[in-house]
Amino acid sequence: MIMKLGEGIESGLHCTLLLAMVPSDAVLPARALAEFHGVSESYLLKHLQALAASGILDAVPGPKGGYRLAHASQEITVLKVVEAIEGTEPAFRCTEIRQRGPCSGKSSSYRIPCAINQTMLRAEQAWRDSLNKVSIADLVQQISGKVDHKSVQCATQWIGERLRLQTVSKET
Amino acid sequence: MIMKLGEGIESGLHCTLLLAMVPSDAVLPARALAEFHGVSESYLLKHLQALAASGILDAVPGPKGGYRLAHASQEITVLKVVEAIEGTEPAFRCTEIRQRGPCSGKSSSYRIPCAINQTMLRAEQAWRDSLNKVSIADLVQQISGKVDHKSVQCATQWIGERLRLQTVSKET
Repeated sequence: MIMKLGEGIESGLHCTLLLAMVPSDAVLPARALAEFHGVSESYLLKHLQALAASGILDAVPGPKGGYRLAHASQEITVLKVVEAIEGTEPAFRCTEIRQRGPCSGKSSSYRIPCAINQTMLRAEQAWRDSLNKVSIADLVQQISGKVDHKSVQCATQWIGERLRLQTVSKET
Repeated sequence: MIMKLGEGIESGLHCTLLLAMVPSDAVLPARALAEFHGVSESYLLKHLQALAASGILDAVPGPKGGYRLAHASQEITVLKVVEAIEGTEPAFRCTEIRQRGPCSGKSSSYRIPCAINQTMLRAEQAWRDSLNKVSIADLVQQISGKVDHKSVQCATQWIGERLRLQTVSKET
Protein backbone atom coordinates (compact mmCIF):
# COMPACT_ATOMS: atom_id res chain seq x y z
CA MET A 1 0.00 0.00 0.00
CA ILE A 2 1.10 3.53 -0.68
CA MET A 3 -0.77 4.16 2.54
CA LYS A 4 1.91 3.91 5.13
CA LEU A 5 1.88 4.35 8.86
CA GLY A 6 4.80 6.32 10.23
CA GLU A 7 7.57 4.33 11.85
CA GLY A 8 6.99 6.34 15.00
CA ILE A 9 4.10 4.03 15.80
CA GLU A 10 6.36 1.02 16.15
CA SER A 11 8.79 2.74 18.50
CA GLY A 12 6.01 4.58 20.34
CA LEU A 13 4.19 1.33 21.06
CA HIS A 14 7.35 -0.50 22.08
CA CYS A 15 8.31 2.31 24.50
CA THR A 16 4.83 2.41 26.01
CA LEU A 17 4.93 -1.37 26.37
CA LEU A 18 8.33 -1.24 28.07
CA LEU A 19 7.21 1.51 30.45
CA ALA A 20 4.22 -0.66 31.39
CA MET A 21 6.69 -3.23 32.73
CA VAL A 22 8.81 -1.01 34.98
CA PRO A 23 7.91 -0.03 38.55
CA SER A 24 5.40 2.80 38.64
CA ASP A 25 7.52 4.90 41.03
CA ALA A 26 10.37 5.15 38.50
CA VAL A 27 11.00 6.87 35.20
CA LEU A 28 13.25 5.96 32.27
CA PRO A 29 15.17 8.68 30.44
CA ALA A 30 14.67 9.07 26.70
CA ARG A 31 18.27 8.02 26.09
CA ALA A 32 17.70 4.63 27.73
CA LEU A 33 14.43 4.10 25.83
CA ALA A 34 16.20 4.90 22.57
CA GLU A 35 19.23 2.74 23.29
CA PHE A 36 17.14 -0.21 24.43
CA HIS A 37 15.22 -0.16 21.14
CA GLY A 38 18.22 0.59 18.95
CA VAL A 39 16.78 3.87 17.63
CA SER A 40 18.23 7.39 17.71
CA GLU A 41 17.35 9.50 20.73
CA SER A 42 16.48 12.62 18.71
CA TYR A 43 14.16 10.53 16.53
CA LEU A 44 12.46 8.97 19.52
CA LEU A 45 12.15 12.21 21.47
CA LYS A 46 9.65 13.62 19.00
CA HIS A 47 7.37 10.64 19.54
CA LEU A 48 7.83 10.57 23.33
CA GLN A 49 6.85 14.24 23.41
CA ALA A 50 3.75 13.49 21.32
CA LEU A 51 2.82 10.71 23.77
CA ALA A 52 3.33 13.08 26.69
CA ALA A 53 1.32 15.84 24.98
CA SER A 54 -1.56 13.37 24.57
CA GLY A 55 -1.47 12.47 28.25
CA ILE A 56 -0.31 8.90 27.70
CA LEU A 57 3.11 9.45 29.25
CA ASP A 58 4.27 11.70 32.07
CA ALA A 59 7.44 13.59 31.23
CA VAL A 60 9.31 14.25 34.48
CA PRO A 61 11.79 17.09 33.90
CA GLY A 62 15.26 17.58 35.38
CA PRO A 63 18.42 15.52 35.82
CA LYS A 64 16.49 12.75 37.58
CA GLY A 65 13.71 12.95 34.98
CA GLY A 66 12.40 10.71 32.29
CA TYR A 67 9.19 9.10 31.12
CA ARG A 68 6.57 6.91 32.78
CA LEU A 69 2.99 5.92 32.00
CA ALA A 70 0.49 8.59 33.00
CA HIS A 71 -2.25 5.98 33.50
CA ALA A 72 -2.61 2.30 34.32
CA SER A 73 -1.63 0.19 31.30
CA GLN A 74 -5.14 -1.29 31.02
CA GLU A 75 -6.47 2.22 30.46
CA ILE A 76 -4.15 2.94 27.54
CA THR A 77 -5.38 1.45 24.28
CA VAL A 78 -3.21 0.84 21.26
CA LEU A 79 -5.49 3.28 19.41
CA LYS A 80 -4.60 6.07 21.84
CA VAL A 81 -0.89 5.56 21.22
CA VAL A 82 -1.37 5.37 17.45
CA GLU A 83 -3.51 8.53 17.39
CA ALA A 84 -1.09 10.40 19.66
CA ILE A 85 1.62 9.83 17.07
CA GLU A 86 -0.29 9.87 13.77
CA GLY A 87 -3.12 12.24 14.62
CA THR A 88 -6.79 11.62 14.08
CA GLU A 89 -7.36 12.83 10.55
CA PRO A 90 -8.86 10.19 8.27
CA ALA A 91 -6.47 8.41 5.90
CA PHE A 92 -8.97 8.80 3.08
CA ARG A 93 -9.47 12.45 2.21
CA CYS A 94 -12.49 13.02 0.07
CA THR A 95 -11.86 16.00 -2.18
CA GLU A 96 -15.47 15.95 -3.40
CA ILE A 97 -14.58 15.31 -7.02
CA ARG A 98 -18.25 14.48 -7.50
CA GLN A 99 -18.80 18.25 -7.35
CA ARG A 100 -16.46 18.95 -10.25
CA GLY A 101 -16.86 18.45 -13.98
CA PRO A 102 -19.40 19.58 -16.57
CA CYS A 103 -22.49 18.22 -14.79
CA SER A 104 -21.92 19.26 -11.21
CA GLY A 105 -25.04 20.65 -9.62
CA LYS A 106 -25.54 23.40 -7.09
CA SER A 107 -23.72 22.76 -3.82
CA SER A 108 -27.12 22.20 -2.19
CA SER A 109 -27.39 19.01 -4.30
CA TYR A 110 -24.54 17.47 -2.33
CA ARG A 111 -26.05 17.49 1.12
CA ILE A 112 -26.09 13.70 1.11
CA PRO A 113 -22.58 12.47 1.92
CA CYS A 114 -20.67 10.84 -0.91
CA ALA A 115 -21.26 7.06 -0.81
CA ILE A 116 -17.60 6.43 -1.61
CA ASN A 117 -16.39 8.62 1.24
CA GLN A 118 -18.80 6.94 3.65
CA THR A 119 -17.56 3.50 2.64
CA MET A 120 -13.94 4.51 3.14
CA LEU A 121 -14.62 6.15 6.51
CA ARG A 122 -16.60 3.14 7.72
CA ALA A 123 -13.56 0.95 7.02
CA GLU A 124 -11.33 3.32 8.97
CA GLN A 125 -13.76 3.11 11.87
CA ALA A 126 -13.41 -0.70 11.79
CA TRP A 127 -9.62 -0.21 11.92
CA ARG A 128 -9.93 2.12 14.91
CA ASP A 129 -12.41 -0.17 16.67
CA SER A 130 -9.96 -3.03 16.34
CA LEU A 131 -7.08 -1.01 17.83
CA ASN A 132 -9.33 0.32 20.55
CA LYS A 133 -10.03 -3.20 21.81
CA VAL A 134 -6.39 -3.84 22.71
CA SER A 135 -4.79 -2.18 25.74
CA ILE A 136 -1.11 -1.95 26.58
CA ALA A 137 -1.88 -4.33 29.47
CA ASP A 138 -3.18 -6.85 26.91
CA LEU A 139 0.11 -6.60 25.02
CA VAL A 140 2.07 -7.17 28.25
CA GLN A 141 -0.01 -10.27 28.85
CA GLN A 142 0.46 -11.49 25.28
CA ILE A 143 4.23 -11.38 25.45
CA SER A 144 4.44 -12.54 29.06
CA GLY A 145 6.32 -15.81 29.32
CA LYS A 146 7.08 -15.79 25.61
CA VAL A 147 10.27 -13.78 25.59
CA ASP A 148 13.52 -15.72 25.76
CA HIS A 149 14.70 -16.10 29.38
CA LYS A 150 18.18 -14.67 28.77
CA SER A 151 16.77 -11.55 27.08
CA VAL A 152 14.43 -10.98 30.02
CA GLN A 153 17.30 -11.30 32.50
CA CYS A 154 19.46 -8.94 30.47
CA ALA A 155 16.62 -6.42 30.08
CA THR A 156 15.75 -6.50 33.77
CA GLN A 157 19.32 -5.71 34.72
CA TRP A 158 19.98 -3.22 31.92
CA ILE A 159 16.80 -1.26 32.61
CA GLY A 160 17.19 -1.58 36.38
CA GLU A 161 20.52 0.26 36.15
CA ARG A 162 18.90 3.12 34.21
CA LEU A 163 15.65 3.53 36.11
CA ARG A 164 15.37 6.73 38.11
CA LEU A 165 13.33 6.35 41.26
CA GLN A 166 11.12 9.29 42.03
CA THR A 167 10.95 10.54 45.59
CA VAL A 168 7.88 12.63 44.82
CA SER A 169 4.99 10.27 44.25
CA LYS A 170 3.10 10.15 40.98
CA GLU A 171 0.27 12.62 40.64
CA THR A 172 -3.10 11.03 40.35
CA MET B 1 -3.15 10.96 10.29
CA ILE B 2 0.20 10.96 8.60
CA MET B 3 -1.16 7.76 7.12
CA LYS B 4 -2.73 8.91 3.93
CA LEU B 5 -4.43 7.05 1.14
CA GLY B 6 -3.44 8.20 -2.32
CA GLU B 7 -5.89 10.48 -4.09
CA GLY B 8 -5.98 7.91 -6.88
CA ILE B 9 -8.45 5.94 -4.81
CA GLU B 10 -11.07 8.66 -4.96
CA SER B 11 -10.86 9.07 -8.75
CA GLY B 12 -10.44 5.31 -9.32
CA LEU B 13 -13.61 4.56 -7.36
CA HIS B 14 -15.59 7.35 -9.01
CA CYS B 15 -14.57 6.15 -12.49
CA THR B 16 -15.44 2.54 -11.68
CA LEU B 17 -18.78 3.70 -10.30
CA LEU B 18 -19.49 5.75 -13.43
CA LEU B 19 -18.57 2.85 -15.72
CA ALA B 20 -21.00 0.66 -13.77
CA MET B 21 -23.78 2.97 -14.92
CA VAL B 22 -23.11 3.00 -18.67
CA PRO B 23 -24.32 0.33 -21.14
CA SER B 24 -22.08 -2.75 -21.06
CA ASP B 25 -21.57 -2.74 -24.85
CA ALA B 26 -19.89 0.66 -24.75
CA VAL B 27 -16.61 2.11 -23.55
CA LEU B 28 -15.65 5.57 -22.33
CA PRO B 29 -12.33 7.09 -23.32
CA ALA B 30 -9.94 8.21 -20.56
CA ARG B 31 -10.34 11.83 -21.67
CA ALA B 32 -14.10 11.76 -21.00
CA LEU B 33 -13.60 10.05 -17.63
CA ALA B 34 -11.06 12.71 -16.66
CA GLU B 35 -13.14 15.63 -17.89
CA PHE B 36 -16.30 14.36 -16.21
CA HIS B 37 -14.51 14.20 -12.85
CA GLY B 38 -12.56 17.43 -13.31
CA VAL B 39 -9.14 15.73 -13.05
CA SER B 40 -6.22 15.73 -15.47
CA GLU B 41 -6.17 12.95 -18.03
CA SER B 42 -2.49 12.09 -17.54
CA TYR B 43 -3.10 11.82 -13.78
CA LEU B 44 -6.12 9.60 -14.25
CA LEU B 45 -4.51 7.40 -16.91
CA LYS B 46 -2.06 5.93 -14.41
CA HIS B 47 -4.93 4.80 -12.20
CA LEU B 48 -7.07 3.53 -15.08
CA GLN B 49 -4.10 1.46 -16.24
CA ALA B 50 -3.67 0.04 -12.74
CA LEU B 51 -7.36 -0.89 -12.70
CA ALA B 52 -7.00 -2.55 -16.11
CA ALA B 53 -3.83 -4.40 -15.01
CA SER B 54 -5.76 -5.78 -12.02
CA GLY B 55 -8.54 -7.05 -14.27
CA ILE B 56 -11.16 -4.65 -12.93
CA LEU B 57 -11.45 -2.66 -16.15
CA ASP B 58 -11.08 -3.71 -19.78
CA ALA B 59 -8.95 -1.32 -21.79
CA VAL B 60 -10.15 -1.43 -25.39
CA PRO B 61 -7.36 -0.05 -27.62
CA GLY B 62 -7.68 1.99 -30.80
CA PRO B 63 -9.49 5.12 -31.96
CA LYS B 64 -12.85 3.66 -30.89
CA GLY B 65 -11.33 2.44 -27.62
CA GLY B 66 -11.78 3.30 -23.99
CA TYR B 67 -12.57 1.69 -20.66
CA ARG B 68 -15.38 -0.51 -19.41
CA LEU B 69 -15.91 -2.83 -16.45
CA ALA B 70 -14.33 -6.24 -16.96
CA HIS B 71 -16.89 -7.87 -14.63
CA ALA B 72 -20.40 -7.33 -13.37
CA SER B 73 -20.46 -4.47 -10.85
CA GLN B 74 -21.66 -6.78 -8.06
CA GLU B 75 -18.47 -8.79 -8.47
CA ILE B 76 -16.17 -5.80 -8.04
CA THR B 77 -15.66 -4.88 -4.41
CA VAL B 78 -14.40 -1.53 -3.20
CA LEU B 79 -11.43 -3.40 -1.72
CA LYS B 80 -10.42 -4.68 -5.16
CA VAL B 81 -10.38 -1.15 -6.56
CA VAL B 82 -8.45 0.19 -3.56
CA GLU B 83 -5.88 -2.60 -3.73
CA ALA B 84 -5.50 -2.23 -7.50
CA ILE B 85 -4.45 1.36 -6.93
CA GLU B 86 -2.66 1.23 -3.56
CA GLY B 87 -1.23 -2.28 -3.66
CA THR B 88 -1.60 -4.91 -0.95
CA GLU B 89 1.35 -4.21 1.31
CA PRO B 90 0.38 -3.56 4.92
CA ALA B 91 0.29 0.07 6.05
CA PHE B 92 2.10 -0.87 9.25
CA ARG B 93 5.58 -2.12 8.51
CA CYS B 94 7.15 -3.86 11.45
CA THR B 95 10.90 -3.33 11.36
CA GLU B 96 11.39 -5.77 14.23
CA ILE B 97 12.91 -3.19 16.56
CA ARG B 98 12.36 -5.76 19.32
CA GLN B 99 15.39 -7.54 17.85
CA ARG B 100 17.66 -4.51 18.27
CA GLY B 101 19.30 -3.02 21.32
CA PRO B 102 21.57 -4.34 24.07
CA CYS B 103 19.35 -7.25 25.15
CA SER B 104 18.26 -8.72 21.86
CA GLY B 105 18.41 -12.49 21.85
CA LYS B 106 19.28 -14.96 19.12
CA SER B 107 17.01 -14.68 16.09
CA SER B 108 15.52 -18.05 17.08
CA SER B 109 14.03 -16.27 20.13
CA TYR B 110 11.76 -14.27 17.84
CA ARG B 111 9.80 -17.09 16.23
CA ILE B 112 6.66 -15.86 17.96
CA PRO B 113 5.29 -12.90 15.98
CA CYS B 114 5.57 -9.49 17.63
CA ALA B 115 2.35 -8.76 19.56
CA ILE B 116 2.41 -5.17 18.38
CA ASN B 117 2.70 -6.16 14.74
CA GLN B 118 -0.12 -8.69 15.12
CA THR B 119 -2.38 -6.05 16.67
CA MET B 120 -1.69 -3.60 13.86
CA LEU B 121 -2.21 -6.22 11.14
CA ARG B 122 -5.47 -7.41 12.71
CA ALA B 123 -6.79 -3.84 12.50
CA GLU B 124 -5.81 -3.64 8.84
CA GLN B 125 -7.68 -6.88 8.23
CA ALA B 126 -10.78 -5.29 9.79
CA TRP B 127 -10.33 -2.36 7.37
CA ARG B 128 -10.05 -4.72 4.41
CA ASP B 129 -13.03 -6.81 5.57
CA SER B 130 -15.13 -3.68 5.72
CA LEU B 131 -14.17 -2.60 2.18
CA ASN B 132 -14.66 -6.14 0.92
CA LYS B 133 -18.31 -6.13 1.99
CA VAL B 134 -19.21 -3.28 -0.38
CA SER B 135 -19.46 -3.84 -4.12
CA ILE B 136 -19.59 -1.22 -6.86
CA ALA B 137 -23.20 -2.35 -7.41
CA ASP B 138 -23.92 -1.47 -3.77
CA LEU B 139 -22.56 2.03 -4.37
CA VAL B 140 -24.74 2.40 -7.47
CA GLN B 141 -27.73 1.45 -5.36
CA GLN B 142 -26.74 3.84 -2.57
CA ILE B 143 -26.62 6.87 -4.85
CA SER B 144 -29.57 5.81 -6.95
CA GLY B 145 -32.38 8.34 -6.73
CA LYS B 146 -30.26 10.63 -4.55
CA VAL B 147 -28.48 12.64 -7.19
CA ASP B 148 -30.07 15.90 -8.22
CA HIS B 149 -32.34 15.40 -11.27
CA LYS B 150 -30.69 18.10 -13.40
CA SER B 151 -27.22 16.64 -12.82
CA VAL B 152 -28.44 13.18 -13.85
CA GLN B 153 -29.98 14.59 -17.03
CA CYS B 154 -26.81 16.51 -17.86
CA ALA B 155 -24.60 13.49 -17.13
CA THR B 156 -26.75 11.14 -19.21
CA GLN B 157 -26.49 13.44 -22.21
CA TRP B 158 -22.84 14.39 -21.72
CA ILE B 159 -21.71 10.79 -21.31
CA GLY B 160 -24.04 9.54 -24.05
CA GLU B 161 -22.27 11.81 -26.53
CA ARG B 162 -18.88 10.37 -25.55
CA LEU B 163 -19.70 6.67 -25.27
CA ARG B 164 -18.18 4.49 -27.94
CA LEU B 165 -20.31 1.50 -28.86
CA GLN B 166 -18.33 -1.67 -29.48
CA THR B 167 -19.31 -3.83 -32.44
CA VAL B 168 -17.26 -6.75 -31.11
CA SER B 169 -19.04 -8.06 -28.04
CA LYS B 170 -17.40 -8.11 -24.64
CA GLU B 171 -15.23 -11.16 -24.00
CA THR B 172 -16.52 -13.38 -21.24
